[in-house]
Amino acid sequence: MSSFSPRRAQSETGDPLLLTPGPLTTSKTVKQAMVHDWGSRDAAFLKINKDVLTRLPEIIHGEGSYVTVPMQGSGTFAVEAMLTSLVPADGKVLVLINGAYGHRAKRILDIAHRETAIYETPEDTPPDPDRVNAILKGDPAITHVFVVHCETTSGVRNPVEAVADVVAQNGRRLLIDAMSAFGALPLDSRTTSFDAVAASSNKCIEGVPGLGFVLVKREVIAGAKGNATSLVLDLHDQWQGFEKTGQFRFTPPIHVIVAFHQALEEFWAEGGVAGRGGRYAENCRILVEGMQDLGFSTLLPPDLQAPIIVTFHMPKDLAFDFQRFYDGLSERGFLIYPGKLTVADSFRIGCIGRLYPKDMHAALAAVREVLVDLGVSTPLRSAA
Amino acid sequence: MSSFSPRRAQSETGDPLLLTPGPLTTSKTVKQAMVHDWGSRDAAFLKINKDVLTRLPEIIHGEGSYVTVPMQGSGTFAVEAMLTSLVPADGKVLVLINGAYGHRAKRILDIAHRETAIYETPEDTPPDPDRVNAILKGDPAITHVFVVHCETTSGVRNPVEAVADVVAQNGRRLLIDAMSAFGALPLDSRTTSFDAVAASSNKCIEGVPGLGFVLVKREVIAGAKGNATSLVLDLHDQWQGFEKTGQFRFTPPIHVIVAFHQALEEFWAEGGVAGRGGRYAENCRILVEGMQDLGFSTLLPPDLQAPIIVTFHMPKDLAFDFQRFYDGLSERGFLIYPGKLTVADSFRIGCIGRLYPKDMHAALAAVREVLVDLGVSTPLRSAA
Ligand SMILES: Cc1ncc(COP(=O)(O)O)c(C=O)c1O
Ligand SMILES: Cc1ncc(COP(=O)(O)O)c(C=O)c1O
Repeated sequence: MSSFSPRRAQSETGDPLLLTPGPLTTSKTVKQAMVHDWGSRDAAFLKINKDVLTRLPEIIHGEGSYVTVPMQGSGTFAVEAMLTSLVPADGKVLVLINGAYGHRAKRILDIAHRETAIYETPEDTPPDPDRVNAILKGDPAITHVFVVHCETTSGVRNPVEAVADVVAQNGRRLLIDAMSAFGALPLDSRTTSFDAVAASSNKCIEGVPGLGFVLVKREVIAGAKGNATSLVLDLHDQWQGFEKTGQFRFTPPIHVIVAFHQALEEFWAEGGVAGRGGRYAENCRILVEGMQDLGFSTLLPPDLQAPIIVTFHMPKDLAFDFQRFYDGLSERGFLIYPGKLTVADSFRIGCIGRLYPKDMHAALAAVREVLVDLGVSTPLRSAA
Repeated sequence: MSSFSPRRAQSETGDPLLLTPGPLTTSKTVKQAMVHDWGSRDAAFLKINKDVLTRLPEIIHGEGSYVTVPMQGSGTFAVEAMLTSLVPADGKVLVLINGAYGHRAKRILDIAHRETAIYETPEDTPPDPDRVNAILKGDPAITHVFVVHCETTSGVRNPVEAVADVVAQNGRRLLIDAMSAFGALPLDSRTTSFDAVAASSNKCIEGVPGLGFVLVKREVIAGAKGNATSLVLDLHDQWQGFEKTGQFRFTPPIHVIVAFHQALEEFWAEGGVAGRGGRYAENCRILVEGMQDLGFSTLLPPDLQAPIIVTFHMPKDLAFDFQRFYDGLSERGFLIYPGKLTVADSFRIGCIGRLYPKDMHAALAAVREVLVDLGVSTPLRSAA
């Protein structure tokens, strides 16, 4: 332990900067929107909520054809609601797996007694659309394909557009978990064919956690009555509630939604997907280059790396201790994802949230300091 | 429409006062606790969360014997998680129904394919423990009984203690939905026998919405593995997550939980159930007496009225128009539950949340003004 007290970075509200895949650092104005109370059935809140529901499909250019069905809880609640409400009891889902979130979808489908087929690739390897095509041709029972846009486990960007094309060519339906990508990686429903996409409030739109949502084609949700295996996760019933009354069936996380509304305003003000995704890409570039200068190497090659979260190989230098590395960054005001990954021997640093290039430079300076503190030689002698 | 602009009541943060059954008016300090960011897996948040989980059982004097399993979403998410995770596939539930929340539990159990028996009474009539006893004696297949503590539909207080006694005498298990009562009506696990009780962040503890929770006996949750019908609502799996890692399985509504932590501090500072319940009882007394002075009559007799929300008969005076009544109160800064009830021809006014006797007096003054505005004679000539 060094007795020297390092300079500590902090956000606008005096908090550590979150270099995590979300929940993430949000703007002060997003959080301040929550310092009020609203009636959950009163006009003022209902208007804010309606605005959120109406504007979200614009992000996928799906205004008119897609509806937003919000789901209280978290992203996984939205994914489970999407899978169990849109896949009927006699459906069969091809689950594309290359990380924890693909596995989670498989587990959700098993619990719901939905038949599945699996196409699994290593965590640094995206699914091959040709292979998806062959699987679909070979198994006519498959009704749906599930894919994760950015597999946050590694940060790999999966080829959603190419997968969508083969799924459509085979007359099957695509369900996307775009949790960590939504709002930063483009997804255009005019050129990419999918039934539904799930995401949440606390990723690239930069709201606070507590709400998931599914954007789903209007005719698909209209045909989903009676599929669900639970009351609260019944996406069709939730949608019907809004159609009939403009209200949630069950108490909404009002403050989270009002903050999300503010976050959406700031998202559009930054230029939507192009602006937000552009800033994250710049954050990511600075992070990767700076870490490489220090001798770290990334799990993924540049063409597979989504600008969301970067997986770095653990240095081989015996002086490098991950817990002390984490603590050293934490003392300096930077929180990274705590704990190593099972993906190779690695750790992850995120580049999303209310972070700017200057923050990434500051984080790199902190990394350098901590390495010196640990007695690790920089640049690292032997990165894996 | 009167062109006169009435004085408008407001909360500490300039908002209307919510005379609703929750979400409700919260303190400024509760909301200000949310103007920060935390990492969901970082020590600072995990400590706050652990504090919440550890202290909630104290409210039922269940420290040591009960564990808290929080559930992202809302109160209904906690009720569905409780019912589907604690009642095994071969269980059978006697559902005591005298309002919407009893009906909702029945619907949850139907969707989960759990067998049920129903004992329904009118909305102003609590279940009779002797009848519960007879039903249990007559149907040995019943494993569980479900009861709502305060049926918020009417505001009726159900005899949870007496029901618990007959359930225990018959060797069955009791599950309680105490949503709107928890923290205001006493529930003592040392003298009242129950397996689990569900409640939420945004009722009598006066937090913001976004979190449900279930307090469940340790040996009951330990034996509940494999019952659940969903991944996210699996209470056993959620509990195991905390036992193993101290963390939520899926992203928690961090800001809601930090606000709830602050709300719990303020709850204890007010003297716990005695203090909080005492203030609400005083609010309720002022409301009922004041409304009676204006000529309104209550659905429930005093001994059945919980100090949570009061149902009033709609006045017979033809000049009384509910929408204009609602709007008039809203203009004056008081939001009541919008919409009439199916329970008789009636409307409801809540007395929970950060409201004090002075607020109830101000609300009564506003009611009087609105009645005058509507041309309704006060006291009302003929209350139902
Ligand atoms: C791709 C993906 N899917 C699902 C989830 C689960 O979301 P949540 O933790 O909000 O339940 C995450 C969370 O990081 C994710 O990155
Ligand atoms: C007795 C009771 N049960 C369940 C609920 C449902 O809670 P939520 O609206 O948070 O889902 C309520 C809500 O008022 C309630 O009063």
